[in-house]
Amino acid sequence: MSSTNLDKVTKILSEVRNKVPLVHCITNYVTINDCANILLAYGASPAMCEAYDEVFDFVKLSSALYINLGTLNKEQEQAMILASTSAKIHNVPVILDPVACAASVKKIQVINRISQVGKIDVIKGNIGEIKSLAGQSANVRGVDSIDSGEGALESCIALSKKCSCVVAATGKKDFISDGRKSAIIENGTEMFTKITGSGCMLGALCGAACGASEDKFSAVVSAILSMNIAGEEAVKAANAPGSFRVKLMDCIYQLNEEKLKEGAKITWK
Amino acid sequence: MSSTNLDKVTKILSEVRNKVPLVHCITNYVTINDCANILLAYGASPAMCEAYDEVFDFVKLSSALYINLGTLNKEQEQAMILASTSAKIHNVPVILDPVACAASVKKIQVINRISQVGKIDVIKGNIGEIKSLAGQSANVRGVDSIDSGEGALESCIALSKKCSCVVAATGKKDFISDGRKSAIIENGTEMFTKITGSGCMLGALCGAACGASEDKFSAVVSAILSMNIAGEEAVKAANAPGSFRVKLMDCIYQLNEEKLKEGAKITWK
Amino acid sequence: MSSTNLDKVTKILSEVRNKVPLVHCITNYVTINDCANILLAYGASPAMCEAYDEVFDFVKLSSALYINLGTLNKEQEQAMILASTSAKIHNVPVILDPVACAASVKKIQVINRISQVGKIDVIKGNIGEIKSLAGQSANVRGVDSIDSGEGALESCIALSKKCSCVVAATGKKDFISDGRKSAIIENGTEMFTKITGSGCMLGALCGAACGASEDKFSAVVSAILSMNIAGEEAVKAANAPGSFRVKLMDCIYQLNEEKLKEGAKITWK
Repeated sequence: MSSTNLDKVTKILSEVRNKVPLVHCITNYVTINDCANILLAYGASPAMCEAYDEVFDFVKLSSALYINLGTLNKEQEQAMILASTSAKIHNVPVILDPVACAASVKKIQVINRISQVGKIDVIKGNIGEIKSLAGQSANVRGVDSIDSGEGALESCIALSKKCSCVVAATGKKDFISDGRKSAIIENGTEMFTKITGSGCMLGALCGAACGASEDKFSAVVSAILSMNIAGEEAVKAANAPGSFRVKLMDCIYQLNEEKLKEGAKITWK
Repeated sequence: MSSTNLDKVTKILSEVRNKVPLVHCITNYVTINDCANILLAYGASPAMCEAYDEVFDFVKLSSALYINLGTLNKEQEQAMILASTSAKIHNVPVILDPVACAASVKKIQVINRISQVGKIDVIKGNIGEIKSLAGQSANVRGVDSIDSGEGALESCIALSKKCSCVVAATGKKDFISDGRKSAIIENGTEMFTKITGSGCMLGALCGAACGASEDKFSAVVSAILSMNIAGEEAVKAANAPGSFRVKLMDCIYQLNEEKLKEGAKITWK
Repeated sequence: MSSTNLDKVTKILSEVRNKVPLVHCITNYVTINDCANILLAYGASPAMCEAYDEVFDFVKLSSALYINLGTLNKEQEQAMILASTSAKIHNVPVILDPVACAASVKKIQVINRISQVGKIDVIKGNIGEIKSLAGQSANVRGVDSIDSGEGALESCIALSKKCSCVVAATGKKDFISDGRKSAIIENGTEMFTKITGSGCMLGALCGAACGASEDKFSAVVSAILSMNIAGEEAVKAANAPGSFRVKLMDCIYQLNEEKLKEGAKITWK
């Protein structure tokens, strides 16, 4: 059973590379370059289009839409909402990254609007963000969650049922649920917290995986596992953040199904 | 004859370093950092000014204006058009990078407006973009051209005559024409397609070269050759995209006329 | 006396790492990623929030506000001014980086508005910018100062008295004054001028240091010294700009008080 699950998950890496999904990202300017580069390294194709006049048509061409609420300027806000309606009309999967939603009323409003006029297939946030969206109290500081994983799986399941989508909460451990089945991943490295954009890059990878596979739950597990295994490899070669970032891209590029299978520490629920 | 051509081309690298042209860039947020850094590594000086209230005056101080249509938000759109009028008035060469123009009506409108109220000295795009602007059918996918080079030189020549400017179409081979004379460059590396921003960085370098030399055709050939030779050197030292990007900057910085001359694979037409 | 000064300065590095100040940055898109990453490497926590609807509340949560005038689009302009009023109300230190102010009337207007409705605790610019703000003639080119250090300390002192804040002018030598006491730092590396964002990253570090210590003068000296010592270490390992940037992040991360003490070349006035 769990071996079958793992097979499904690792196979998605090859599906990304075969299908080269076009991932339309509307994302913050802090890590927009990292997101585009990691998509290329993963085998996908990035489209970082955010002009209000262009997003509707661009989503139509895309395999997935990744919406990251990091820097939420007015034109981005309008573009996100419009893009999500295009995704609904054209049946394009939407991955939402609710960056810092626990610290901002505005972000909750935008999430509600997207869910109202568009759609959301995956919510991927840190544990603090997911707990907050699930209506539980969370321990956050600026954009960072300093929450322990306790109760995180329950929050994923609750939010997943509430929004009828796959939910992933990342932290020291990562929790993924589609409301019925769940997974806990214990791979990764502390070094992810020493660079900016680990979460954003992961969100982009979730977009690529969901753009390559209909099985959203396995796709999200696959993207998170890929990021974590690459991170583990990178930190072995580079134990300081500047070098780690460089190596991380190399390791994503050099990833293969065998490395995922050998390294995976997943508990299925 | 062709040796004289190559001399003209390689000499422009030294002219950039002697004159340190100030290259005003209005460019997308994905690779804006890469563009600024590669200009510095090349020996030029970047000015990434895009505020509507500032561009007109800033262009006046600049040696060249690089306009990249990647992320085309409303303020950028207005700033690009205004900056191009300033370039016309102040006789500053304009390099246009029509990113993803084949996939967006909006971008064609902006290009037309720039050409109407401002001016364009160089159009540098991938083969799909150039074919599309030349009115030929092109094979594109998102921002990437997946077009073979067939017919690319003809497209360059046609577009060049239509717009009275130098046109460069990049791909596995690169094609440059000013409508009368043309060049085909067969340097470079596949690794350019594994990172984001190769095209944008090249556009910025074209700005620097045109800011240092009156001979726009040779300047564009020189910039493309420089990028390609540096890429060939970089990939020898770093065969994965994270490390390659780092090494590419180093190799641009360490480039010299001899390396360009020895490595050049140019066919003159 | 000067040993006590140096102790105060080096100790601030540990204070940053103990307190993990949240540094709210409104900064240009060219180097926004570098600023976030260097804050993390330094031991601080970045919050790159610039949405007009969010900055007022976000400043309230922050330990310091860093305002960089590099790319000054309309929403950023409004957000900067609003954020500075929030900083005044909530007593959050404000670090201003007047990028290219000598070349732009608009930037002077924004600085005046910030100082009118908000507050400024530290002005950190290059020598050309500081001279220009102090009302002296400066030698600038685009965003770069090509001014010698002559008269720089006097400009710092004058501007410091005029604005009742700490002023730092960076260049080959760095000058810091609070109007009564001053310091001249002779560390650093020429390689800082071969990459974009040295100044922006330094501004962000000043924010972190001021967020961790009440003693703003020592905090700014500490941030500048940290950047310079890390730069000296980085250039030893990597003498080309691509590799240097990577190594710089590593060296900031690996910095400690001993390295600062041993390397410091500071003259106290």
